[in-house]
Amino acid sequence: MVAALNHFTEIDHCSREQLEDLINFAMEISSDPAPFENRRKGKMLVNLFYEPSTRTRVSFEVAAKRLGMHVINVTATGSSVEKGETLTDTFYTIQAMGPDCIVVRHPEEGNARKLAALAEPGIHVINAGDGIAAHPTQALLDAVTLRQHVGSFQKLRLVMAGDIRHSRVAHSVIALLKKLDVGEIRLAGPAQFMPGEAATAGTRIFDNLDSAIRGANAVMMLRIQKERITGLDIPGAEEYHREWGLTTRRLGLTEPGCHVLHPGPMNRGVEISSAVADSPQSLIRNQVRNGLYARMALLLTLMREEN
Amino acid sequence: MVAALNHFTEIDHCSREQLEDLINFAMEISSDPAPFENRRKGKMLVNLFYEPSTRTRVSFEVAAKRLGMHVINVTATGSSVEKGETLTDTFYTIQAMGPDCIVVRHPEEGNARKLAALAEPGIHVINAGDGIAAHPTQALLDAVTLRQHVGSFQKLRLVMAGDIRHSRVAHSVIALLKKLDVGEIRLAGPAQFMPGEAATAGTRIFDNLDSAIRGANAVMMLRIQKERITGLDIPGAEEYHREWGLTTRRLGLTEPGCHVLHPGPMNRGVEISSAVADSPQSLIRNQVRNGLYARMALLLTLMREEN
Amino acid sequence: MVAALNHFTEIDHCSREQLEDLINFAMEISSDPAPFENRRKGKMLVNLFYEPSTRTRVSFEVAAKRLGMHVINVTATGSSVEKGETLTDTFYTIQAMGPDCIVVRHPEEGNARKLAALAEPGIHVINAGDGIAAHPTQALLDAVTLRQHVGSFQKLRLVMAGDIRHSRVAHSVIALLKKLDVGEIRLAGPAQFMPGEAATAGTRIFDNLDSAIRGANAVMMLRIQKERITGLDIPGAEEYHREWGLTTRRLGLTEPGCHVLHPGPMNRGVEISSAVADSPQSLIRNQVRNGLYARMALLLTLMREEN
Repeated sequence: MVAALNHFTEIDHCSREQLEDLINFAMEISSDPAPFENRRKGKMLVNLFYEPSTRTRVSFEVAAKRLGMHVINVTATGSSVEKGETLTDTFYTIQAMGPDCIVVRHPEEGNARKLAALAEPGIHVINAGDGIAAHPTQALLDAVTLRQHVGSFQKLRLVMAGDIRHSRVAHSVIALLKKLDVGEIRLAGPAQFMPGEAATAGTRIFDNLDSAIRGANAVMMLRIQKERITGLDIPGAEEYHREWGLTTRRLGLTEPGCHVLHPGPMNRGVEISSAVADSPQSLIRNQVRNGLYARMALLLTLMREEN
Repeated sequence: MVAALNHFTEIDHCSREQLEDLINFAMEISSDPAPFENRRKGKMLVNLFYEPSTRTRVSFEVAAKRLGMHVINVTATGSSVEKGETLTDTFYTIQAMGPDCIVVRHPEEGNARKLAALAEPGIHVINAGDGIAAHPTQALLDAVTLRQHVGSFQKLRLVMAGDIRHSRVAHSVIALLKKLDVGEIRLAGPAQFMPGEAATAGTRIFDNLDSAIRGANAVMMLRIQKERITGLDIPGAEEYHREWGLTTRRLGLTEPGCHVLHPGPMNRGVEISSAVADSPQSLIRNQVRNGLYARMALLLTLMREEN
Repeated sequence: MVAALNHFTEIDHCSREQLEDLINFAMEISSDPAPFENRRKGKMLVNLFYEPSTRTRVSFEVAAKRLGMHVINVTATGSSVEKGETLTDTFYTIQAMGPDCIVVRHPEEGNARKLAALAEPGIHVINAGDGIAAHPTQALLDAVTLRQHVGSFQKLRLVMAGDIRHSRVAHSVIALLKKLDVGEIRLAGPAQFMPGEAATAGTRIFDNLDSAIRGANAVMMLRIQKERITGLDIPGAEEYHREWGLTTRRLGLTEPGCHVLHPGPMNRGVEISSAVADSPQSLIRNQVRNGLYARMALLLTLMREEN
């Protein structure tokens, strides 16, 4: 039984037990989603997105509709933002319409948490990505995918490589895996893409992908988050691929059968070669599918007492 | 029993009885919405929006979905407008797909009424705001909110303040309250923001907010409608706030317990201070909630014979 | 019984029997749609649109919702396209979420077919327009409309006039009508708007609308596809209307009762006069209505074994 959870805005707000229960529940759904269809019929989810998104918005929309929920999409473009309304007033407006869940994506760190603190009882706030800080449902789906394919978190030797600093996915994945006592987390990337000590504590840092990757049984490649980088020189695609791209040759340095993950969208030929992205070792589409189950598990858990 | 109503494009097209019945019906729904859920299952509503909107579009979408209706959103961006199609041809196209209700927002006055005249039997047109002329469902929700909190319209002494001239909300609220024989309507705002005589007839006009507000039991503050103003100097925010903003001091001049309304989106620190917006006297979130019930009442009324 | 069909991306991929069955099925639905409501309850359709669209997107959305399906809209704007994701990776992402149908509109020719080749079993790809090449569901609805009003395809003497070269509608209509052994197809338009031989084979070409139109029993007028034309001088609206516009005078040269079609959006006063567009001979709104039935027929056919 998953312990009571009211919002889901940051990994660190959850206990290890809650996170393990969510992962287990998502795995249960993934093995047979049919019994969970329409289990929250008539409930309402609002996607409140202040940044462009395809996969996350659609994943929440599909997950909610599979549960029988109504879904309302609100994007910052074409909205009252242009008329000078504050984020909190928009939130209060949406909330006054009585949805059950509000899924928030926002370019600034901490805003999902801030809105969760303003939520009325019975309204659940989910962080779908805020600034470079957190994207906890993505971490959940990554954990589900790793658990399915590596078996146990203790056996996991995961390399995360690329633009870790500007990746909210990386921050949430690191936070989650640390809570779960994962075997080993290795970080590799250009110095300018390494995050601060709070994020790297408990991990091993490499300034070279070849060294980082030796003996790993999972590798998660990260896109350069151009839209969130200011004041840094971004390396050219070819040069970056040579130094930091996951190629077939580099994949050969890992443990045989090493799994490849990428939160998407991928930039083929930059952080990952097409041969690797499309290889049998790639779990990229499994991640997307598990995103659906992870979000169904989360929605069912947040609204547990309500149907 | 609400008298038959086919479209809802302007307050003046409705009889006093029809308006009172709509308000009473919305109040009934607000006290217990559950019995009305799914009462128009399978019916279809199209939101045809030629201007950005969050609250109105979402409010119609939530109201319709609560009634079990399908909702299709169409916005001018990404649409055949760019390919040179006229408004009426777009309307005919949408209409040919057989929706039950078409909700229209358009920057030019009179277009909702014009489209209603082209509607086939069984298709109901609702004005969600046209130019600076009318926004009748907003007037409806304001009337519901005032009725709930002031008790009777005869007792109401309402101040509307700010940019009345460019506010379609103001025009519809004034028209509705006049029909309902409201106690007293006072208008206050800079001369350039005062509407013409047709709108002000039967109201009292003030060139000073302090005088207007004395003894009022409800105040509705209006945003400066920058996007609809051409050829006028718009005052600076600080200066405007000093002269025309609703502050705690000014609120102290009203009758004790005076209610504060704002159709949103608010510009805090301009027409209203944050202290007032967040005070217990503020009904701003009640207005949003009532918007849902007013629109449910309207949809049920328009499609009354059809389920 | 309609023969098994897995995707619908190009007319030439279908047999004559399949096309005839689709047309017959759409006609059956058009005569009484009620029994088909909710026949694919809980199935999911994704509209994946890389170009602006109102009528086609809404038509698929209405058709799918009438069948009880969930609909998810994805547009290129506000999507991961901006983050450098390829079309095929976006498709794989959408596909991994387990929809039943993916409706694709894309500015480049052949992309719907390309994506259909990547689809997993049980996922059906529909072309909603790719480049100037094809728009096969529009051809279907045009065939339904012509069948209803002309009676048999063998009796049809259809003139298509205007910018045939850049019209995907024209390419698909010509391909479909040829398969159906239509009586006669005449093409008329400025030389620069005439397509290549592959498209014109089996048709009669006219460089003059007056000659083309004599004795026709149906005329389909086409909009100048400004957004898809590069490197050509586009004639002025008045001059074009004089030379190539369908006017009341020109309509008088046809067989009495000749039917007028236009795939929309129309540019009134350019390729068609308002008098003709709004005349009793115009089937333009019938086309839109039949679009709904043609798409319902297609969706039911593609997912035939699945409910």
